[in-house]
Amino acid sequence: MENIEYVRPQDIEKRSFAIISKELEEKGIVLPKEQELVTKRAIHTSADFDYAKTMTYSAHAVGIAKKLIQNGADIVTDTNMALAGVNKKELAKYGGKAHCFMAEEEVAKIAKERGVTRAAVSMEKAAQIEKPVIFAIGNAPTALIELYEMIKSGKYRPAFIIGVPVGFVNVEAAKDLILKTDVPYIINRGRKGGSNIAAAICNALLYELRDEN
Amino acid sequence: MENIEYVRPQDIEKRSFAIISKELEEKGIVLPKEQELVTKRAIHTSADFDYAKTMTYSAHAVGIAKKLIQNGADIVTDTNMALAGVNKKELAKYGGKAHCFMAEEEVAKIAKERGVTRAAVSMEKAAQIEKPVIFAIGNAPTALIELYEMIKSGKYRPAFIIGVPVGFVNVEAAKDLILKTDVPYIINRGRKGGSNIAAAICNALLYELRDEN
Repeated sequence: MENIEYVRPQDIEKRSFAIISKELEEKGIVLPKEQELVTKRAIHTSADFDYAKTMTYSAHAVGIAKKLIQNGADIVTDTNMALAGVNKKELAKYGGKAHCFMAEEEVAKIAKERGVTRAAVSMEKAAQIEKPVIFAIGNAPTALIELYEMIKSGKYRPAFIIGVPVGFVNVEAAKDLILKTDVPYIINRGRKGGSNIAAAICNALLYELRDEN
Repeated sequence: MENIEYVRPQDIEKRSFAIISKELEEKGIVLPKEQELVTKRAIHTSADFDYAKTMTYSAHAVGIAKKLIQNGADIVTDTNMALAGVNKKELAKYGGKAHCFMAEEEVAKIAKERGVTRAAVSMEKAAQIEKPVIFAIGNAPTALIELYEMIKSGKYRPAFIIGVPVGFVNVEAAKDLILKTDVPYIINRGRKGGSNIAAAICNALLYELRDEN
């Protein structure tokens, strides 16, 4: 076990972030102060430094998202994996709840009847939540497309969009649609992302709030 | 919406795998036939072609893992995120169950009392399952270290290890420990991996079995 270094569990994260910071510096990458902890947590969760180049934030996105959480906003994810990853205990401190409607039987039924994706129906269902909602989309480009259509038609305005679906078909185009809206966002441009990244971004916001207080 | 291409939901995965195959070919990468679908699903879930270079399989690993599942093996994960991602309905077809003990109060209590990680205690708990267990570790290097120690001391022998924790501290060294054992494994060498990759590998095995039958 000569290569295992004893690090106290509570110190592993700190050490990991120090390594990430050092390697970003070596690569000559300087992250904007406001975005730093969120982007670093995406790297922490994937060991993929590409996120330093592709994470894209609307103006004051991190501050806006944190304020929303502080005011009790809910989070809606598009997978149960992302839902499992969000720190729901931290979110509950401010009165927020996390939801995922994807696996609900009713959603599957409506999607089948109407010939649309479950992700689209889930977004419609989320739009009925009667308080501000942060959407954390790590999987389904159709979720972003549905949100875009609701925004464009004036039917609904999400409070915030974390748009990090991963994949090869329509993923980049769906992210580009959200970049065109005036809804505040954190988007990872390109193909990469995932449920783990969506959850990591939510948690980065939650941990910033926790550590500020 | 000029850049959105209409692809039927059921065709998106097929199309994605076709793109992955084409790009692997362009990169001159030929995956061993037996490992192909598992490695491609890791790429599919991350949009990261690095997995084509770092995924490492013991001899006949995919066949061994599939046979274990067919014979009713359980799967134990080290995060609730990975647990959420594993297709438990497919697994149940063969009599297998998926478990994660990390969030159990008893595990937290024992870990605290003994000054070890919850991951280590979770592995000990999993070792008490009275049938073959496939371990799918996407997060905690200490889970792999604990499994290694149990193997080495002769206390317990996992049926199979999917070792894909992600991170910067002890992750590579913990994976190297498992590579030294004679337990069949699928390991992603290096820093990369994650709960999403652990779940994707389990699902790749399950979908191969489904599509063969």
